[in-house]
Amino acid sequence: MPRPGDWSAEARAQRIAFLESRGVSVPHLAGRGDDPDPESLRGNIEQYVGMTQVPTGLIGPLRVNGVHAHGDYYVPLATSEGTLVASYHRGARLASRAGGIAALVTTEQVQRAPGFVFANIADAAVFAAWATTNFDRLRDVAAQRSTHGRLIDLLAHVESNHVYLILAYHTADAAGQNMVTFCTEAVCQAILESSPVTPVSWFLEANMSGDKKATVLSFLQTRGRHVMAEVTLSRKLVTRGLHTTPDRMAEYWRMSFVGGAQSGSIGVSGHIANGIAAVFLACGQDVACVSEASVGITRLELTATGDLHCAVTLPNLIVGTVGGGTRGPTASECLRIMRCEGSAPGRQQASKFAEICAALALAGEISIVGAICAGHFSKAHQLFGRPRGAGA
Amino acid sequence: MPRPGDWSAEARAQRIAFLESRGVSVPHLAGRGDDPDPESLRGNIEQYVGMTQVPTGLIGPLRVNGVHAHGDYYVPLATSEGTLVASYHRGARLASRAGGIAALVTTEQVQRAPGFVFANIADAAVFAAWATTNFDRLRDVAAQRSTHGRLIDLLAHVESNHVYLILAYHTADAAGQNMVTFCTEAVCQAILESSPVTPVSWFLEANMSGDKKATVLSFLQTRGRHVMAEVTLSRKLVTRGLHTTPDRMAEYWRMSFVGGAQSGSIGVSGHIANGIAAVFLACGQDVACVSEASVGITRLELTATGDLHCAVTLPNLIVGTVGGGTRGPTASECLRIMRCEGSAPGRQQASKFAEICAALALAGEISIVGAICAGHFSKAHQLFGRPRGAGA
Amino acid sequence: MPRPGDWSAEARAQRIAFLESRGVSVPHLAGRGDDPDPESLRGNIEQYVGMTQVPTGLIGPLRVNGVHAHGDYYVPLATSEGTLVASYHRGARLASRAGGIAALVTTEQVQRAPGFVFANIADAAVFAAWATTNFDRLRDVAAQRSTHGRLIDLLAHVESNHVYLILAYHTADAAGQNMVTFCTEAVCQAILESSPVTPVSWFLEANMSGDKKATVLSFLQTRGRHVMAEVTLSRKLVTRGLHTTPDRMAEYWRMSFVGGAQSGSIGVSGHIANGIAAVFLACGQDVACVSEASVGITRLELTATGDLHCAVTLPNLIVGTVGGGTRGPTASECLRIMRCEGSAPGRQQASKFAEICAALALAGEISIVGAICAGHFSKAHQLFGRPRGAGA
Amino acid sequence: MPRPGDWSAEARAQRIAFLESRGVSVPHLAGRGDDPDPESLRGNIEQYVGMTQVPTGLIGPLRVNGVHAHGDYYVPLATSEGTLVASYHRGARLASRAGGIAALVTTEQVQRAPGFVFANIADAAVFAAWATTNFDRLRDVAAQRSTHGRLIDLLAHVESNHVYLILAYHTADAAGQNMVTFCTEAVCQAILESSPVTPVSWFLEANMSGDKKATVLSFLQTRGRHVMAEVTLSRKLVTRGLHTTPDRMAEYWRMSFVGGAQSGSIGVSGHIANGIAAVFLACGQDVACVSEASVGITRLELTATGDLHCAVTLPNLIVGTVGGGTRGPTASECLRIMRCEGSAPGRQQASKFAEICAALALAGEISIVGAICAGHFSKAHQLFGRPRGAGA
Repeated sequence: MPRPGDWSAEARAQRIAFLESRGVSVPHLAGRGDDPDPESLRGNIEQYVGMTQVPTGLIGPLRVNGVHAHGDYYVPLATSEGTLVASYHRGARLASRAGGIAALVTTEQVQRAPGFVFANIADAAVFAAWATTNFDRLRDVAAQRSTHGRLIDLLAHVESNHVYLILAYHTADAAGQNMVTFCTEAVCQAILESSPVTPVSWFLEANMSGDKKATVLSFLQTRGRHVMAEVTLSRKLVTRGLHTTPDRMAEYWRMSFVGGAQSGSIGVSGHIANGIAAVFLACGQDVACVSEASVGITRLELTATGDLHCAVTLPNLIVGTVGGGTRGPTASECLRIMRCEGSAPGRQQASKFAEICAALALAGEISIVGAICAGHFSKAHQLFGRPRGAGA
Repeated sequence: MPRPGDWSAEARAQRIAFLESRGVSVPHLAGRGDDPDPESLRGNIEQYVGMTQVPTGLIGPLRVNGVHAHGDYYVPLATSEGTLVASYHRGARLASRAGGIAALVTTEQVQRAPGFVFANIADAAVFAAWATTNFDRLRDVAAQRSTHGRLIDLLAHVESNHVYLILAYHTADAAGQNMVTFCTEAVCQAILESSPVTPVSWFLEANMSGDKKATVLSFLQTRGRHVMAEVTLSRKLVTRGLHTTPDRMAEYWRMSFVGGAQSGSIGVSGHIANGIAAVFLACGQDVACVSEASVGITRLELTATGDLHCAVTLPNLIVGTVGGGTRGPTASECLRIMRCEGSAPGRQQASKFAEICAALALAGEISIVGAICAGHFSKAHQLFGRPRGAGA
Repeated sequence: MPRPGDWSAEARAQRIAFLESRGVSVPHLAGRGDDPDPESLRGNIEQYVGMTQVPTGLIGPLRVNGVHAHGDYYVPLATSEGTLVASYHRGARLASRAGGIAALVTTEQVQRAPGFVFANIADAAVFAAWATTNFDRLRDVAAQRSTHGRLIDLLAHVESNHVYLILAYHTADAAGQNMVTFCTEAVCQAILESSPVTPVSWFLEANMSGDKKATVLSFLQTRGRHVMAEVTLSRKLVTRGLHTTPDRMAEYWRMSFVGGAQSGSIGVSGHIANGIAAVFLACGQDVACVSEASVGITRLELTATGDLHCAVTLPNLIVGTVGGGTRGPTASECLRIMRCEGSAPGRQQASKFAEICAALALAGEISIVGAICAGHFSKAHQLFGRPRGAGA
Repeated sequence: MPRPGDWSAEARAQRIAFLESRGVSVPHLAGRGDDPDPESLRGNIEQYVGMTQVPTGLIGPLRVNGVHAHGDYYVPLATSEGTLVASYHRGARLASRAGGIAALVTTEQVQRAPGFVFANIADAAVFAAWATTNFDRLRDVAAQRSTHGRLIDLLAHVESNHVYLILAYHTADAAGQNMVTFCTEAVCQAILESSPVTPVSWFLEANMSGDKKATVLSFLQTRGRHVMAEVTLSRKLVTRGLHTTPDRMAEYWRMSFVGGAQSGSIGVSGHIANGIAAVFLACGQDVACVSEASVGITRLELTATGDLHCAVTLPNLIVGTVGGGTRGPTASECLRIMRCEGSAPGRQQASKFAEICAALALAGEISIVGAICAGHFSKAHQLFGRPRGAGA
C-alpha cells in the first residue's frame, strides 16, 4: 500500500485495488455505491435525511495471534482526527514485525438492570433472596423470549428498599442491547407474577447495567467481551521503530499510570478511545458505547532482558457482527475487510472482531507512548493534524 | 416535517426540502455531493480509502433559550441505533411545548498535562512552586506560539518525585486539542530553559489532561465547556406527552441516581452518550471524546406545584465549530443547519453549539425516563429498533 | 440518665449506676480496673508502653427492630470530638420515639485476594479457568485449615498476565482478617501444587481484597456484613424533635447526594464515619477499617403522606465480637452493654452488633441533617465542641 | 529498648524508663495517672461514662529528614491488632538504617462547602460568578470571625440550580473542622446579605468538603496537609532486612498498583490506614478522618542501580496539635514523645507531626510489602496476631 502521507487520488485507488485484490469489494467506500433506499434503513434511523460521511483510512497489516482472529488484518478506521490513522498504522506494523499481537477473549455477557422499589427493607431483602434462588425459572422465561439471548447470571443489589437486579446474558454475535431489553421485560413480568412480595413500583432499567457509560461496576465484571492483547517488543525494535528505549517507555508508563489513577479515571490507559471509536464507527458499532468500551488497563513494562512487554485488557468491549449498524453499506464492507461479517456456525465472529479491536488498541498505545517518549508527539500532529498551510 | 415512522423516499425528500426552504443547502446529505478529493482531507485522515456512511436523522424543533443559542433548532443526529432519533425528537418537541430549554455555558478551558520526573521529592516541590509562581511568563510563551490559544491557568500536582502540571487554555471556537499540544510544547521548552531544578525526565502529556476518557478530575473542572440546561414540564404535559406522571418520573430518577452512584460511574445520568455521540458524529466533532463529553449530572425532581423540574449539567463538553472534522462535507452542512458553522467576530459559535448539545441531552433524558416510567421502553425498541420482520 | 450537657462527676456516676442496674458491670470504664498485665495483651500489641485513653459517652435508648438485635440499646461511643455523642444521642432518641429503627443483615463475607503473575495472557486465562472450576477442592483445603473460616466464593480477575483471585469467606463472629489470611495461604499452596500452569510469581495479597480502604469493588460486594437500617419519621416528630420539616430535609439530601456523587466519593452519605469510628473504638474493632466500614448509601426522602423516610445501607461493615481487640478490658465491657459479647450457639452476635451499628449510623445521619436544615449545625459545635471559654 | 516480642512487665517498664530518660514523662500511659475530672472533658465528649483503653506500643527510632521534623523519633501507636506495631517498627528501623526518610509538607488547607439552591440555572450562574469575584470581602469576614482561621480560596461548582462553594482555610496548628464551620457560617451570612440573587434555600455544608470520607475531590486538592515521604533502600538492606529483593518488591508493587486501580480505590496504597489510625488514636486526632487521611499514593520502584525507591504521598492528612482530642491525658503525652505538642511561635507543630505521619506510613508500606514478598505475611500474623495458644 502507498505510504501514509500520500493523499493523492492514485494512492486511494491503489488502496482500494489492494483490497479488491484480496477479494473484498468495497463499492460504497470507493464512492461507487448507490444512494441507499431509506426504507432499507428502518431499524437504524428515523427521520432520515441522508448519510453523514466520515473519512476512513486503512491500517495494517496488523498481525493478530488470537483464538478467533489469526493472521494479518487490515483495519478500517473512520475519523476526522488527523494523525490517528498514521499513529495506529505505525503501531500495528511495529507489533507485526515483533511477531504479532496475542489476543484472547475470556468472557462475554451483556447486562440489563431492572429496579424494584419496596415498602421497606424487609420486603426488599425477601425479594432479592427469592429472585436469586429462582434463577433457573427466570432463565427459561428468557429462553422463550429470544432465540439468541441466554440469561446466564442474576445478581441482586439491595440498597435499603431498592432492589437492583443485574441480569447478564449471552447474545451470540450481536451486541445485544435490544435483545436483553426484550428478554428482561419478559423476565420482569414473570417475576411480578410469582414474587412472594409485591414491589411498590418497578422499572425495566435502573441505571446499573453500565449501558453507554464508564462504571467501575462494568469494569469489574465483563460488559460485552473481556478481551486482552499483548506483545513483547525487542529493544532493537523499539529503538529503530520508535526512536526511544524500552526503559524510557516503561518509565513513562509508570508516571502515566499514576497520573491516570490520580485523575480518578476508571481503568488506566492512554488513548484507547481513539482507536475504538474509529473502528466502531467504520464497522457499524454503537459509538455511544465508546464510553464503556474504551475503559481498560494498559501496561508497558521492562522485561528482565531489557525488552518491552506491552498489554491491554478491555473488559467492556461491547461489539457485534450482526444487527445494529453492521448491515449498513460501508459498515458491512469494513467488517468484510477483516472477514468479521455476520454470523456463521462454528465461528465466533464477534469474538474475532473483539480480538482485532484489542490488538488495535494495543498498537495505538504503543505508538502514542513511543511518540511521547521520543518527543515526536507534537511534531506528528503538526505534520498530520492540520490542513496544508494551517497555523496553530 | 413528516412523522418519524415514515421511511419513504418522499419523506426524506420533504425533510431536505424543508431544510432548503430555511435557506440551508445540504447537497452531500442529500446524496448529490461529489466524491471528495482525497487531498482536501489532509489534516483529517491518512491512508484514505473512502467515506464511512452513517444514517442521519433530523429532530426538532428544539427550542433553546440560551445565551448564545436562542430560537428553534433542528438537530441532525447520525446513528445506526434505531429508536434514538425518534426518542430525542419526542423529548425535544415536548420540551419546546413547555416553552423551551434554558441553556447556559458558564466556563470553558482545555487542558494538556505534561509530567516531570525529579531526583527526589524536594526537587519536585521546588519545581512545582517555581512553575506556579512563573505563570505570567509561561502565559506569554503560549501566546507567542498560537493566535487563538490562551493559557489561562496552571496547577501543579506533586506526587513524590513526579510533578504533573495541568495547563488550561482557552481555544476560541476550536476544540483545541492540537492547539494546546503545540502551546504546551513551547511552554515546556521555556520551563526547561529557566527552571531552577532540572528534571531527570519529562513528557509532554502524563495522563492528567482527561483527554478521551472519563475522569473525576475533568468532571470537577471544566474540560471543553461547562454547560447546563433545564426545563420545567407541567404535570399536564408529562401526562399527555409521556403517558406517565411527574411523581413517577421523580421516583424513578431517585432510584436511578442511586443506581448510578452505586455502580461507580463518574457523574450520574441516563443515556447522554447517545445524543452526544450522534450530534458529534453528524457535526464533525471528535467522537472519541464521547468518553468525557457525555459525563454529567441529570436531575428530575418534583416541584412544589407538582410539576417536573428537569436539568442536565455537562462539565466536559468538548466541542468546536472550526478545525478538526468540522469542515467535512456533511459536517459543515450539519453545523449550518443549526447556524453553528465556523467562527465569527462577536459570536461564540462553539458556545452556541454547546448550548444546543446540552438542550439535546436534556431532551433525551426526559424522553427515555418517560418511556421507562410509562412502560414503553421495550415497546419503542421493538417498533424502531429492528428491521421489518426481525425476531428478537 | 442525666442530660447530655452535664459534665459533673455525679452525672457520670449516675450513668454508670444505670448500667449496673441493668446488670452490666463496667469497672474499667468506671476507672476502677487494674492496670492490665502486659502479657495478657499478647496478640493485640507489641512494644507495649501503656493504654491510650479515649473519652467515652453513652447514647440511648436506641430502639432496634432487627433480626438479630431487637430491643432498646445503649451504645458506647469513644471519641474526642465534642458534639458527636450529643448528636447521635438526639438521633437515637428521636428514631426510638418513632418506633425504632428496622435493621437487617443480608449477606456476610470477608475477602483475601492473592495475585499470580504468568508468562503471558494465555497462561493467565488457563489458570483463571482452572481455579474457578476447582472451587470445591479449594474449599476443602480451607476447611482443613480453620475451624471457623469457610471459603464460600472464588472470583478470578484476569488483567493480561496477572490473575487476581478474590477468595470470600464466612468467618462466624470474628472480623476474620487473620483467619482468611491463614486459609488463603493454604489454598494458594494447594493451587501451586496442582495448577496446570505455573505462575512466574505469586503473592498472598495483591490489593483487591479491599482491606483497610474504600473501594468500589467492596462497595459492590459485601465486605464484612451488608446491613441496612430504616425508619420513617412523622412530620410531627421532625418538626418537634429537629425543628425543621421533612420537606427541607429531603431537599437537603437531594443536594447533598449530588454533592457527594460529584465529589467522587464511594457511596454517598453524611458523616457515617463519625459513629462507626466511635463505636468501633469503644468495642475493640479495628478502627483502620473505618476506611471501608463507613462507606454506604444514605437516603432521606419525603413519603406520599409528607413524612420522612430515612435509610442507610452499609455494605462493608466489618465487625467481630470475638478475636482482635474485643477481649480488651473496656472493649469487652462495651460489648456487654449491648449484649453483643463473644459467640454463642444459635446466636449471631456479630450480626446483632452489625444491626446496632447500622441503626446507630442512621440515627447520626438523621441528627446531622436535621441540624444543618434547622441552622443549628454551627451552634451545636459552639456549644459542645469547645472547652469552656474557648475562642474560635 | 527491649525487643518487640517481649510482653513482660519489665519490658514495658524499660520502655517507659527509656522515654523518661529522654525527658518525657508519661504517667497516664504508665498507668499512674488520676481518673480525669469529667468536667475537664467538656468540649470532647458528652454523656461521659469513662475512658476506653487501647493498647499502645512504641516504635523507633524512625529517622525523619523533614523540613519541620528532623531527627530520630519514637512513635506511639494505639491498636488492638497484633503484628501492626512490630511491622511498622521493622520498617522504621530499616528506613532509618538507610539514612532516614525524607518528608515534606507542601500545602495545607481545610474545606467547608456550603450549598445554595436557586430558582434556576441563570440565578445559580450569576451567584457563582458573584461569589468568586467577591473573595476579598468574604476573606475579611472570615478573618473577623476567627483568630487562627484564614480563608485562602473559594471555588464555585455549579450543578444546574445548585451552587456548591468550596471554601478553603488555613487553620494553623489545629485540624480546624470547627473553626472552618464557624467562619463559613459568618461568610454565608455575609453572602446572603449582599448577593445580587437570593437563594431559594441554603445549607452550611452540602457534602463537598470531603469531611470524614474518601473522595477524589479531596485527593486532587489538599485536605489537611499534602505531605510526602521517600527513602531509597539499598539492595543489601532489602536483602538483609526484608529477606527479599528490590526486583521482587518492585514487581509486587506493579501488580498491587494495578490491583488497587482495578478495585476502584481512591489513590493506591497498601495499608496506610493501619499506621494512620494507630498514630491518630494515640495522639488524640479525629479517627473518623482515617477515611480521608489514609488516602494516598504509594510507589516502590527499582532504581537504575538496582536499589528500591520508596515513596508515599498523602494529600489529605488532616492533623492538629492543638484542639480536639490533643489535650487528653494520654494524647498529650504521646504528642510530647515526638515533641509535637501544642503550638509555638516560629514552629509549625502540625506540619512536623504530618511529616512524621508520612514517614510512618512509608515505613509501614515497606514492611508489609517486604513481608508479602518474602512469604512472611501469614507467618507474622500467626506469631503476633493471636493470643498464646490460639487456633485459627
